[in-house]
Amino acid sequence: MFVISERINGMFTDVRRFIENKDKEGVQKLALAHVEAGSSALDLNVGPAGSDPIEAMKWLVECVQEVTDIALCIDTPRWSVQKEVVPMVKSRAIINSTKADPEDLQKYIQLALDNNAALVALTIDKDGVPSNVDKRLELGAQIVMVATEMGLGMDDLFIDPIILPVNVAPAQPKNVMETLQQLKLLADPAPHLVLGLSNVSQNCANRNLINRVYLVMALAAGLDAAIVDALDKELMDAVITTELLKGNAIYCDSFLEAHRMG
Amino acid sequence: MFVISERINGMFTDVRRFIENKDKEGVQKLALAHVEAGSSALDLNVGPAGSDPIEAMKWLVECVQEVTDIALCIDTPRWSVQKEVVPMVKSRAIINSTKADPEDLQKYIQLALDNNAALVALTIDKDGVPSNVDKRLELGAQIVMVATEMGLGMDDLFIDPIILPVNVAPAQPKNVMETLQQLKLLADPAPHLVLGLSNVSQNCANRNLINRVYLVMALAAGLDAAIVDALDKELMDAVITTELLKGNAIYCDSFLEAHRMG
Repeated sequence: MFVISERINGMFTDVRRFIENKDKEGVQKLALAHVEAGSSALDLNVGPAGSDPIEAMKWLVECVQEVTDIALCIDTPRWSVQKEVVPMVKSRAIINSTKADPEDLQKYIQLALDNNAALVALTIDKDGVPSNVDKRLELGAQIVMVATEMGLGMDDLFIDPIILPVNVAPAQPKNVMETLQQLKLLADPAPHLVLGLSNVSQNCANRNLINRVYLVMALAAGLDAAIVDALDKELMDAVITTELLKGNAIYCDSFLEAHRMG
Repeated sequence: MFVISERINGMFTDVRRFIENKDKEGVQKLALAHVEAGSSALDLNVGPAGSDPIEAMKWLVECVQEVTDIALCIDTPRWSVQKEVVPMVKSRAIINSTKADPEDLQKYIQLALDNNAALVALTIDKDGVPSNVDKRLELGAQIVMVATEMGLGMDDLFIDPIILPVNVAPAQPKNVMETLQQLKLLADPAPHLVLGLSNVSQNCANRNLINRVYLVMALAAGLDAAIVDALDKELMDAVITTELLKGNAIYCDSFLEAHRMG
């Protein structure tokens, strides 16, 4: 699984303070801990912090790329931020995210192509999050079609079918599982499939358990990337074990440690 | 999920001793603990104990049905035992198991029909455990065909695609997942799909973790019954959470406890 660490996000109190206080060391320490824990990329989200979201995101990127050359997932719905920040990423940028309306897709795909970046596209359009599988698939097909037309390879495309909290949308986790199975068949090679995992358990009890079980279910259904807390050891153990049972790794008695050592 | 407790099995030292010493109370206490823990049925297997497997199984059934009227899964490959013991089950018997060779199927299905029992049929024939998905599906189709011809309803049929240990057969867990997805499409209503779960982790390190993760993956793929340790709390938490995320239960903050209280 392509592990995108969710933790450098201004929604978390520590990160909000780091941004407010320009505490470079705080951000860098946290970033390195998540690289160490096995992240493939770091999601950067300034959250509600700061009056100038462009400056805040630029500062985050600068902090992090001083200490690591891991891929950076620029997480903001603002085009003005993406346009400014994506070109300054030295390693590899993952643009997170665009909606599936054609005009948005064209603009964001062009930005990805111009910067050798990857793109996360949501199965959502101006009408909001689809309540059923068919509409999600329709938007997924649209994303793949426009990407293919414009020359963005499937390896540079992450489709996110959007998971909603199970306490407010009880049918959605199952719908998203079915969507993942079908999205995987849209193209050969298939696009990457990603979820912002922790949303499934927003405001729920037993959040870590719900996250962990849903991640295993989604990986079984074809998910191959997720935005998660890479420091949640039980979650990462479940991911490593799922990869083993999907035949993507060979068993040895120390398979958990072996995976962690790369 | 239909939970079949694996624990009354002579392979476990305590149960072997109970059988050897005719310790009725030992068996009954263990049986009640597994009923309490949320089992839907108890698997009874005399294991290597005793010189007379028919008498040993009869004794086990008598012990257990003195204290509970839960369904009893008579677990032995010996026809001589099944033929004698299944008619004496007062609640509901689940015959575990038959191979998929037509002559075996006919004999065992007739036994199930004569005793209003359910039947576990393995996707295995005289050539052994299939190494690929197609052969498993072919045997699954044969099982469904003979059952339908003879009038055994799908609700009385459990197909077991046989899981092998991941350390000796690394491709099998994935093959079995694909088989489960396909078996579910063989008939409408579908047959039940069951696994003897703990076999996946035989002689492995981190057995509970492997069992738990594979069970969630298999449930996501369509499994609806499993032979498991119902006293493994983390396993049962994962099962309850999977049911929630499949839309089979409604979220409340105490969803784990609510499920346990039935």
